[in-house]
Amino acid sequence: MKVAGFDIGGANTDLAIIDFEDGEIKEIKTDFEYLPMWCENDRLGVTLVDLIEKICPIDEIDAVGISMTAELVDAFETKTEGVRDIAATCEKLFDVPVGYIGLSGVLSLEELINNPIDVAAANWKATSQIVAEIEKDCIFVDTGSTTTDIIPIKNGEECAKGRTDFERSATGELVYTGTLRTNLTSFVDSIPINGKEYAVASELFASTADVYNVLGLIKDEDFVCATCDGAGKSKEDSARRISRVVCADLDILSMDNIIEMCHHIHNMQVKQIAKGLKQVSERENLDKVVVTGLGKDILCAEAAKLLNLDVKSMGDYYTDEECVVAPAIGTALMMKNSIL
Amino acid sequence: MKVAGFDIGGANTDLAIIDFEDGEIKEIKTDFEYLPMWCENDRLGVTLVDLIEKICPIDEIDAVGISMTAELVDAFETKTEGVRDIAATCEKLFDVPVGYIGLSGVLSLEELINNPIDVAAANWKATSQIVAEIEKDCIFVDTGSTTTDIIPIKNGEECAKGRTDFERSATGELVYTGTLRTNLTSFVDSIPINGKEYAVASELFASTADVYNVLGLIKDEDFVCATCDGAGKSKEDSARRISRVVCADLDILSMDNIIEMCHHIHNMQVKQIAKGLKQVSERENLDKVVVTGLGKDILCAEAAKLLNLDVKSMGDYYTDEECVVAPAIGTALMMKNSIL
Repeated sequence: MKVAGFDIGGANTDLAIIDFEDGEIKEIKTDFEYLPMWCENDRLGVTLVDLIEKICPIDEIDAVGISMTAELVDAFETKTEGVRDIAATCEKLFDVPVGYIGLSGVLSLEELINNPIDVAAANWKATSQIVAEIEKDCIFVDTGSTTTDIIPIKNGEECAKGRTDFERSATGELVYTGTLRTNLTSFVDSIPINGKEYAVASELFASTADVYNVLGLIKDEDFVCATCDGAGKSKEDSARRISRVVCADLDILSMDNIIEMCHHIHNMQVKQIAKGLKQVSERENLDKVVVTGLGKDILCAEAAKLLNLDVKSMGDYYTDEECVVAPAIGTALMMKNSIL
Repeated sequence: MKVAGFDIGGANTDLAIIDFEDGEIKEIKTDFEYLPMWCENDRLGVTLVDLIEKICPIDEIDAVGISMTAELVDAFETKTEGVRDIAATCEKLFDVPVGYIGLSGVLSLEELINNPIDVAAANWKATSQIVAEIEKDCIFVDTGSTTTDIIPIKNGEECAKGRTDFERSATGELVYTGTLRTNLTSFVDSIPINGKEYAVASELFASTADVYNVLGLIKDEDFVCATCDGAGKSKEDSARRISRVVCADLDILSMDNIIEMCHHIHNMQVKQIAKGLKQVSERENLDKVVVTGLGKDILCAEAAKLLNLDVKSMGDYYTDEECVVAPAIGTALMMKNSIL
């Protein structure tokens, strides 16, 4: 049987299709698409179908699981409205069973309508299912394009103290920083260049994708978000965007200056994640970390090392492509277990 | 004679028309328009003409002075390109003398083409002309919609140590924070609510205009920037946007919670400006401050008080409307002096 798991984020929609044989995973296929839900949520239905059909005919799919975080985008007045709107779109698309990942398990549409907040931003619940099979007592750190989930697992069960994005913003379990879309000015106040500290300009001139593009830490095909100025994705385009963050341009700053800036920005983002990880690690008395997501090596593992924690990578058990869509894989797994 | 002074910013274009009689100011009329130059710079020419004609027929104008900061927007690859492009637009519009405010004085088009960087972000030079008449030895602090200029004046002459936006980002003389357009996450890392600290979400969910709207510190007609979600400008609309900054919504947070958040955010922005002001004040050994701009009372004066500096307000010499467009008034004054 084939189960599709979707993780519908604010900026990216991820898909994993798992082919099960005798209850065991035979094959996993993954894909994702940049879909800015704050302005293009009317394209969600088409995107979900297209993503499946790029992998296999839609009538081969036996069940569909849905995780979401996109209900937070400002196209929706409240999370409740967002969850219901997204679910309404999904329901129209499939003739097979559809389930929604909530903190209390896999919900039917009726259950979702009665308790929409259970489904809001619960995709980390799905990821925790996979991580628990790798390590029964650990913290998993999953840095995606936009956010970082830092979730404690004990005896194979997630035990996050915060149960909503809002609560997790206070417990260290959600650090709203990512590998691609994060505005540099959200975690950097000033940047040293040639021994002087330059305060940053509060605009959206450049994002973290530009920094890791210049440093060669992400592949071209991973740079899936829009650019801040609508220009290209070459290293020079990224450098030009980064120069504006200190009110400069490439007449003023050399490529060496930009690289110096990027190393500092990278360090600051590692520290930002380490701060949340420290809070969770000390509170829960856990010192093993499993890293995943697009930022698993360049951000999560570095943050864990900074705190002298033991690091395992989901990359030792899954391919890089699978790690990037870990919540979608977890979603497909939970959906399959719920219909058996 | 009537002289028009324009201050062409990245987000707002300000106009002051000064009517001189026997060399003295007889009357000042002002206006401004929200013009996001990063996406609508092709509307600049029309906007300049419309702004004048709302005040008087264009053929009554005897000279036009231009200041700019819009060359930094990411529609332009470099500042040089931005300055030349904006000047080219201005030249086509007027049959009377046009001059460009640079750090070295009022430049002709030919001088601008040879030395565009002199004209980039030099509008504070124009403001310093007015302030020097109020106080010969002081620091002026001008918080507009987007940025804050902190400029030392000695013996009636500005003596800013940084000569470009880039340099001023290191000297404390430019703090890129403002009353309307500033992303809250650029100067706030976490916000206390009911005794817990909530880390902020790095998106552009809300701006400072929302905070001062909720607190009743700006008038409705001053809320001239676009809203982050494209929704309205009621206090509830602003509160909803602010709730998203901690991944919440108005189902989760009450208006009292939002007001508590706003007071904290306001304090943090005052401290941000105070940091730059302290740097300039200690270095230049100046303890008098003249405040102006839309944020003169709610931000600049508060920052000066925090540092126990003496505060004078340009509002004691000019109307509030005039203070908001202080660089445009200074531009008209410099232009008039240059043609005599």
